[in-house]
Amino acid sequence: MADEVILLDTLPSSFGMRVRIALAEKGIRYEYRDEQLLQEKSPLLLQMNPVHKMIPVLIHNGKPICESLVILQYIDEVWNDKPPFLPSDPYQRSKARFWADFIDKKVYDSGKRVLMNKGEVMEQGKKDMIECLKLLEGELGDQLYFGGTTLGFLDIALVPYCVWFHSYETCGDFSIEAECPKLMAWGQRCMGIENVAKSLYDKHKVYEYALQLRERFGVK
Amino acid sequence: MADEVILLDTLPSSFGMRVRIALAEKGIRYEYRDEQLLQEKSPLLLQMNPVHKMIPVLIHNGKPICESLVILQYIDEVWNDKPPFLPSDPYQRSKARFWADFIDKKVYDSGKRVLMNKGEVMEQGKKDMIECLKLLEGELGDQLYFGGTTLGFLDIALVPYCVWFHSYETCGDFSIEAECPKLMAWGQRCMGIENVAKSLYDKHKVYEYALQLRERFGVK
Repeated sequence: MADEVILLDTLPSSFGMRVRIALAEKGIRYEYRDEQLLQEKSPLLLQMNPVHKMIPVLIHNGKPICESLVILQYIDEVWNDKPPFLPSDPYQRSKARFWADFIDKKVYDSGKRVLMNKGEVMEQGKKDMIECLKLLEGELGDQLYFGGTTLGFLDIALVPYCVWFHSYETCGDFSIEAECPKLMAWGQRCMGIENVAKSLYDKHKVYEYALQLRERFGVK
Repeated sequence: MADEVILLDTLPSSFGMRVRIALAEKGIRYEYRDEQLLQEKSPLLLQMNPVHKMIPVLIHNGKPICESLVILQYIDEVWNDKPPFLPSDPYQRSKARFWADFIDKKVYDSGKRVLMNKGEVMEQGKKDMIECLKLLEGELGDQLYFGGTTLGFLDIALVPYCVWFHSYETCGDFSIEAECPKLMAWGQRCMGIENVAKSLYDKHKVYEYALQLRERFGVK
């Protein structure tokens, strides 16, 4: 029997985009179910992720897997006939996991402060974001990808933020490209890969969504 | 050449206790270096974890690995001649990773609110903590350990909180045992394992440390 794979997701989500890239890279066919998060959550989402009630959720043969980085590792382990996302060396694996966790803790948080605030909180968010991205730029070094010569776990974890940069820059009135040109070049390189390009949401549509979020949460 | 393993840690840290249990379970000899976090951080800590500047840091043959859950997976992958912490089945692995992440996001956060606040914030922290622990109790079900019949990844991730429960209960004036008797019984069962017992800090000393933290951060 063929695998039944369903993804509960919403198009602008950077966490969801990670999973879409991973599924595309492994060549997995799946059913995409869009969750309109600014409206009511679906009964299926509440049933499949009762703890966090958040997308993305991968449902594989009826079993839910939640949290994007957990899902990436699951996909990597189950569909192991395709090139792996994580390196084989335990130390390199630990570094990929460390930086992916760093993105979730620090890049996401600073982005939220830029988008959903004004004044000093936003200014600090901008500073923190540039500091985080410079650290990631340092980790990339002279490699083509964080995964070396091919797209890897950390590339997949970070590249969805590239389509959010336009929203951060526009809302925060600053330039990420001016501060982190090597990281921006890396982002362009990733977006030249078809499986990445087709999995990312358009940056202008992301911006429209960001404006809706700001309105919803009363950021004027 | 024998492996050189150094752990930068501080005794009351629940994150550090995880690593100590993992090292003990794998039978790894290591040098313990105590960081006095209420005083100045050591140059070695700042050098080995320049991003977060936090313990625990495992230094294996000169290379640092940071973040306790990343370290646990590293130890599991490098010293793979001993029984694994993570299950072999990808879905079970994803569940262990999901719940360990849940502990870091939700249990730690609610504990901090109980210890470092008063009034409504503390009360909400107590409610959230009980809710989190009941979810974990549900996940344990009728198993001896989260790892099934033996101590596993999620057991190692959670059991250090058991020596913090006394501090939460005393500062918050509530009983975790009354609400989560099955989880408390699981904790006692884990502490019956020598490698766990010898790696955990005494709950009364944890409480002394918690009081120092409260004083340092002006919680009266």
